Amino acid sequence: MTKPLNIGMIGYGFMGRAHTNAYAKVNHFFDLEYRPVLKAVCARDAAKAQAFADNWGYESIETDWRALIARDDIDAVDICTPNNLHREIAIAAARAGKMILCEKPLSMNVAEGEEMCREVEKAGVANTVWYNYRRVPAVSLAKQMIEEGRLGRIFHYRAVFLQDWTISADLPQGGQALWRLDAAAAGSGVTGDLLAHCIDTALWLNGGIDNVTAMTETFIKERVHTATGQKQKVEIDDACAFLARFRNGALATFESTRYARGHKALYTLEINGEKGSLRWDLHDLHRLEYFDYANESRYRGWRSIHITDGDHPYMKHWWVPGLQIGYEHSFVHHVADFLADLAAGRPTGPTFRDALETQKVCDAVLDSARSGRWVSIT
Amino acid sequence: MTKPLNIGMIGYGFMGRAHTNAYAKVNHFFDLEYRPVLKAVCARDAAKAQAFADNWGYESIETDWRALIARDDIDAVDICTPNNLHREIAIAAARAGKMILCEKPLSMNVAEGEEMCREVEKAGVANTVWYNYRRVPAVSLAKQMIEEGRLGRIFHYRAVFLQDWTISADLPQGGQALWRLDAAAAGSGVTGDLLAHCIDTALWLNGGIDNVTAMTETFIKERVHTATGQKQKVEIDDACAFLARFRNGALATFESTRYARGHKALYTLEINGEKGSLRWDLHDLHRLEYFDYANESRYRGWRSIHITDGDHPYMKHWWVPGLQIGYEHSFVHHVADFLADLAAGRPTGPTFRDALETQKVCDAVLDSARSGRWVSIT
Amino acid sequence: MTKPLNIGMIGYGFMGRAHTNAYAKVNHFFDLEYRPVLKAVCARDAAKAQAFADNWGYESIETDWRALIARDDIDAVDICTPNNLHREIAIAAARAGKMILCEKPLSMNVAEGEEMCREVEKAGVANTVWYNYRRVPAVSLAKQMIEEGRLGRIFHYRAVFLQDWTISADLPQGGQALWRLDAAAAGSGVTGDLLAHCIDTALWLNGGIDNVTAMTETFIKERVHTATGQKQKVEIDDACAFLARFRNGALATFESTRYARGHKALYTLEINGEKGSLRWDLHDLHRLEYFDYANESRYRGWRSIHITDGDHPYMKHWWVPGLQIGYEHSFVHHVADFLADLAAGRPTGPTFRDALETQKVCDAVLDSARSGRWVSIT
Amino acid sequence: MTKPLNIGMIGYGFMGRAHTNAYAKVNHFFDLEYRPVLKAVCARDAAKAQAFADNWGYESIETDWRALIARDDIDAVDICTPNNLHREIAIAAARAGKMILCEKPLSMNVAEGEEMCREVEKAGVANTVWYNYRRVPAVSLAKQMIEEGRLGRIFHYRAVFLQDWTISADLPQGGQALWRLDAAAAGSGVTGDLLAHCIDTALWLNGGIDNVTAMTETFIKERVHTATGQKQKVEIDDACAFLARFRNGALATFESTRYARGHKALYTLEINGEKGSLRWDLHDLHRLEYFDYANESRYRGWRSIHITDGDHPYMKHWWVPGLQIGYEHSFVHHVADFLADLAAGRPTGPTFRDALETQKVCDAVLDSARSGRWVSIT
Repeated sequence: MTKPLNIGMIGYGFMGRAHTNAYAKVNHFFDLEYRPVLKAVCARDAAKAQAFADNWGYESIETDWRALIARDDIDAVDICTPNNLHREIAIAAARAGKMILCEKPLSMNVAEGEEMCREVEKAGVANTVWYNYRRVPAVSLAKQMIEEGRLGRIFHYRAVFLQDWTISADLPQGGQALWRLDAAAAGSGVTGDLLAHCIDTALWLNGGIDNVTAMTETFIKERVHTATGQKQKVEIDDACAFLARFRNGALATFESTRYARGHKALYTLEINGEKGSLRWDLHDLHRLEYFDYANESRYRGWRSIHITDGDHPYMKHWWVPGLQIGYEHSFVHHVADFLADLAAGRPTGPTFRDALETQKVCDAVLDSARSGRWVSIT
Repeated sequence: MTKPLNIGMIGYGFMGRAHTNAYAKVNHFFDLEYRPVLKAVCARDAAKAQAFADNWGYESIETDWRALIARDDIDAVDICTPNNLHREIAIAAARAGKMILCEKPLSMNVAEGEEMCREVEKAGVANTVWYNYRRVPAVSLAKQMIEEGRLGRIFHYRAVFLQDWTISADLPQGGQALWRLDAAAAGSGVTGDLLAHCIDTALWLNGGIDNVTAMTETFIKERVHTATGQKQKVEIDDACAFLARFRNGALATFESTRYARGHKALYTLEINGEKGSLRWDLHDLHRLEYFDYANESRYRGWRSIHITDGDHPYMKHWWVPGLQIGYEHSFVHHVADFLADLAAGRPTGPTFRDALETQKVCDAVLDSARSGRWVSIT
Repeated sequence: MTKPLNIGMIGYGFMGRAHTNAYAKVNHFFDLEYRPVLKAVCARDAAKAQAFADNWGYESIETDWRALIARDDIDAVDICTPNNLHREIAIAAARAGKMILCEKPLSMNVAEGEEMCREVEKAGVANTVWYNYRRVPAVSLAKQMIEEGRLGRIFHYRAVFLQDWTISADLPQGGQALWRLDAAAAGSGVTGDLLAHCIDTALWLNGGIDNVTAMTETFIKERVHTATGQKQKVEIDDACAFLARFRNGALATFESTRYARGHKALYTLEINGEKGSLRWDLHDLHRLEYFDYANESRYRGWRSIHITDGDHPYMKHWWVPGLQIGYEHSFVHHVADFLADLAAGRPTGPTFRDALETQKVCDAVLDSARSGRWVSIT
Repeated sequence: MTKPLNIGMIGYGFMGRAHTNAYAKVNHFFDLEYRPVLKAVCARDAAKAQAFADNWGYESIETDWRALIARDDIDAVDICTPNNLHREIAIAAARAGKMILCEKPLSMNVAEGEEMCREVEKAGVANTVWYNYRRVPAVSLAKQMIEEGRLGRIFHYRAVFLQDWTISADLPQGGQALWRLDAAAAGSGVTGDLLAHCIDTALWLNGGIDNVTAMTETFIKERVHTATGQKQKVEIDDACAFLARFRNGALATFESTRYARGHKALYTLEINGEKGSLRWDLHDLHRLEYFDYANESRYRGWRSIHITDGDHPYMKHWWVPGLQIGYEHSFVHHVADFLADLAAGRPTGPTFRDALETQKVCDAVLDSARSGRWVSIT
C-alpha cells in the first residue's frame, strides 16, 4: 500500500494546473511508496478555488494561505503564487514543518533566497524548486552523458530562451494573467522568468559560473497597469543577454527575450566539449542532438536521438519507442523523484540551496546590466 | 454536476493503459457533461486484473468478459483485446445494449466487420474505433485545412508507417507481448497493425479509395511460437506496400514495415494539392508542414507550424504556446469527443461503419498481394 | 602536359550548359592526364550556336550534327538533344569512332538502347551516360558504405522524384523549352525524365530489379502543342509510381510526379538494411543521413553528415570543411572520372550497357501501367 | 564584345583559388560588359606561382608584388595575402592607380584601415573587400526583405560563426597553412577571421553598432611555431563573444570560436523584427528561414525557402528551380557585381570605407575584451 502525502496547493494558475496534473498522474506510471493526496487548494477567491478543487478533486479549499499552512492534515505545501509571495509563504511553511515544493524562481532576489534557505534548513523540511526542464528526458540524458565523460573538457555553453508574446504595446501589465510584466510581483522580467531556467540547467550540467557581463532592454516603455487602469512605466526587462565564464573555463552566452518574433517558447541549449557536443531545444523536447567526435572521421555528424526508448531517462514508465511525451511530463518526473527521494531520505534537486545559486547569477546579471561592468558570482 | 459514464475495460496491455489514462484525465482538461467512471477491468488473470485496477482506480475486476458485459452497472465497453476477439465481444456488448469503444483494427476481416456493423446499428448503441491519429491536433488541423479548400484539387497522397522492432530473428511470435506476430491472433501483420492507421487517416482526409495493387513480404520465415516453444512458419506480413487510386482522382502510395532500421514508429503522410501541400509525421507529432502556393513566388517555402497554440484543434485545453503535448493526448481527445458527442446525440467517428471502410482496403490489399492483380474496393 | 580531348557538343540547352561548364572547370580542380577542349558546338540555329560558342569559348560551330561527327578534329561527342535523337546520333558517332557522352535517358525504349549498345561495343568507343546523381558526393559515399557492408542485408529501398512545375493547364507542350511534355520528343514523361534517375541510382546501390507493378496518370489531358498551336492530347505520364522487388530480396517503392506542389526537384532515396540505413535528398544534396545500429542503444539516432570534408568522395578537390558544393559539381565529377578512366583504359559507369538496365525497368514500368500486371525485367 | 579587365592576383592559397575560379566563370553565366583576364599571379615561390598559373591559365607570374603592381598591363589587383600585408600592398596599388579587390578583413586594425581608405579615395580607384557572404543569394534576399520593410522594427540580431578545426594541441601556428593562428600575420584570431564576416553582414542588414562588451579566450596557450620549431605563446583569440547595441535600438549577441566540436563552418544569423524574422546558416546556405507574422494566426510557422528560383537574387543565372549552388558562387556574384558596377560607374560594396566600419567593431571588441568595459564605436 502506498503512503499518502497530503498536498496543500497555493495558487491555481498555469503552474497550479501543471503541478496538480503531475500529482494526479504520477502513481499511475511510477511505482512509488508515496502517493500525493490533493488535500486542499488555496486562493483568495473562494469561488475560483472551489472550481479548481472540483475540477481536480481537491478535498477542500482555503482562501488564506496561512490557514492552509496551519492545518495539521497538510504534509507538503506547493507554492504557485507570483514570485513576490514565495519568501513569506515558504518561511511560514518551513516554520510549520511542512515540506515545500516552490515554483521557480526561488525568490525576488538573493537576500530573500538566503533567508529562505536558512529557514528550510533550520526546519529540516524537504524542499525543492520546480525547475522542471532538468527532468525533460533529453536534458536528463545530457546530464548523464556529461557525467560519463562523453564530452570531455567543455569549451562552450550557449542558451537562449526566446518568446514573442509581449510584442504588442496594447498588452497591459499586472493582474492574474500578466503579473509577469509587473516588476512588483515578478521581481524581474525575462531574467527571473526565462533565463532562470537556462541558468539552472547550465549550473546543473556545467558547474558554477564565475562572472558575467550583461545588458537588458525594455522595448515597450509604458503599459497600462491593470490595478490602476493608468499607463505606467514598465520596470521589468523585456530582453536580457549576458556573457559568462564558468569555473571549468568554459565560455558562455545566454539570451532571453519576449520579442523574438516566431518563437513561442524556444529554450535551446548547446554545450561543446573536446570529445563531443550536445544540443537540445524545448520546441522539440523529445529529441537530443549529439555529435560524437569518436565516430570515424568521414561518418561524423550530428545525431538526432529520438528520446522515446525504455533506456532513456524516465521513458520506460511511458509508452513504447517512437511515441513522444510532452511538456507536462517533466512535472510528473519531478514529483516522481521527489516521492522516491522522500522514501529514501534524499534531497531532491534543485533544492532551495541549489536554486539560490541560480538566483545569485540572476542578481549578478541584473547588477551588471545596470553598472555596465563584469560582476562576479560569490 | 457531471453525469457518470461507467466504463468496463477488457484488456490491460499497452492500449488498456492508453485508454484508461485518457478516461482518468479527460475531465481535468475538458468541460464535459459526462465523466467516465472506471467501473471494472476484465482480464483472464485475476491477479493482473487486480494490479491494474489498483494502479488506475478501477472499482472492480472481472476475469470473464461475458460477466463484464452482463453487469448492469457498465455503460460502455472498451475492447482492448487482440484482434481475434473483437468480433465476439463487440457483438455480445451490442446485444447487451452497451456502448462500444473498440481498439483498431475493427476486425480480422471484412466479413467480421460487416457483422459487427449490423449488430451495433441494430442495437443502436454508440460505437467508435480508436484510430487515435485523427485526433493528433496537427492531423485534425490538416483535416480542417482540406475542408476549407486550402489544398484545392488533390493530386497525390503518400503515407508510410515504418518500424524496426522485429528485425531480430530471435524474437518469438505469440503470447501477450508478441501476439502481433501471430496471424491467428492478429489476422495480419503490418497491414492491420500499421497500414490500417494510414488508411483510416487517408480515407478521412482524402475520401474513398477505388482500387489497389500491393505486395507483401515476410522477411523472417520462421519464429518460435510462445504457445508451443517450437519454430513455426510466420504467417503475418512483415512489410506491405501498395499503390492506390482515390475516387477524387488522386494517386497514392502506401508502405509499412517493421524492418526499416532507424524508424521506431515513423508514420508520415503527405498530401499534394493544386493550391498547397501538407506533411506530417508521428515522430514530431506536434508539427504540421504546410506549403502555400498563394504566397508570393519568391517567399514560398514549407512552413513548419508548431501546433501548440490556443487556436489549434484541442490545444486551448492544454498549456500555453510553445509547449508540446504527446502521443497520449490523442486518446484524451478521442474520449473528449466521444463524451461531447454522447451529450449531443451525435456519432463519433470513426464509427464501426467508418472503420469497415478501412477494413475493406486492408482486405483488398492482402488480396492483391496474393493475386498480383489490381483489386477494386466495392 | 595534359593531352587535349576535343569535344563536340550537340545541343546548347540546360544540359549543354551543365556539361560545358564541367568541361571548362574540371582541370582547375582535378589533376588529370586529359584536358577537354571545346572544339565545336552544334545546333540547327547558327546564331544560337554561335552565341553559345562565344559565351563558352567553343572554337567553332556546326548546324548539322552529321557534319560535326564527320570532323576529324572531334574526339568525343556529347549528345544533349531531346531523347528522340539519341539513337541516331549515337550510332553515327560510334561508327565514326567517336567517344560518346550521352545525356540520360539512354534512349526512347529498350529496342533503341540495345541497338545503341551493340554499336558502341562493336566500335569499341568509350561511352557513358550522364546519370549525374551517382557523383553527388553524398550518393557516392552511400555507395561506398554499402560496399563496406555497413548496412548489411537490405530490406527496403524507396525513392521519389517530386516536382511541381507543370501543374498549370496553360503550359503548352513541345518546342525547345517544353519538349519534355511532348511524347514524340521525350518518349515518356516523368518515367524517362525523373524515375530514370531514381532507377539508375537504385540499380547502382542495390543491384538488379526482378519485377514491378506500376500506375501512371496524366492529370492535364490536353495542352496546346507549340508546333501546331492547337490543343492536343498529352501523351506523356505526368506521374508514375511503382512497386518493385530487387534480386537481393529487398522491397521498393518508387514515385515520380510533376504535380507535387511545394517540391521543385526533390529526389529522395532511402535504403534500410539490417545494420543501418541511409537517406539522401537532392534539395540538400550536401548531406547524407545515416543510422548506425551499432551505436550504443540509447545514443542511436539519424546522423546528418555534412559532406564537405576532404575524406568525402571528390571533396578534397574543392574547398574546406563546411563549405558546400552544388548541383553543377556532379557533372564535373563525371567528367573527371571519364578522363581518369580514359587514361587508365577503364569504362566509366554508367556505360550505355549499364543505362540499358535502367531503360529495361522504365519500359517494364510503362508496360505494367498499361496492363495492370506485374512485369518482370529480363 | 566584352572589354578585358586585366587581373593581377597576389597569393595562390584558398582565397586565391576561390577568386580565380570566380574570374574564370563569371562571363559564362552573367552577361557583362567587362571580362576578367587572368594576366598575372604573384607569389614569392616561382615554382608555386607557375603551377598555379598553369592550372588556371594565368598568362604570367611575378615573385614580387611590387613588380606586379608596376606593370602597365594590370588593371586590378586582387590581394589574397595574409592580413599583415594588406595595407602595404593596397596603398602601393592605389598609388599606381590600380583597382583593388582585397580579401577580408580589410586590415590589421582601424589605423591601417583608415590609411587604406584615404589612399584609395585619394587615388579614386575602384575598391572592394571580399566579404562574400553578402552575395549568398539567401543573404541577399534577406537584405531585400528588410529593405521592403517585411520585418518592421528590429528587436534582435544574433550571429555565431562556429568551427572546430583547432581543438588539437598538436596543431602548430604560422606558415602558409596556419598563418591564421599566428597573431603577427593575422592580427587577431576568430575576431578578424570569422566575426568580421558576421559583423559585415550585420552592419549591412541592420545598420551601425553603437557599443559592445566582449570576452575572448585562448584555450590552447602555447603551440609550436612553424618559423622557429619552438613552442610559443599563442597570441590570437581562439574564441570571442560580444554583446552589442545597434543604432536602431536592436540588441545583439555575436560569438565565434574554433572550439565548437561538430561545427565545421557554421555561420548562422537571425534577425527578429516586429513583423517577421529571418534565419540563415552557412551549412545550408541555399535556404532562408522566414517567419511572417502577417500569416493567419493558426497557420503561422517558420518557412524554409529553397533559394533556387529564377526570382531569387542571382539565381536566374544558374540552373533551374530545386538545384542548389554552393559556396564558390558567392565569389562569382561578387565579381559579377564588381564588373557591372564598373561599367555603371558605381562603387561595389563593401568598399574599403564600408569594411572600415567592420574593422572598428572588431577593434572595439578586442579592446573591450582586454578592458572588461563597454566600448563605443565612433
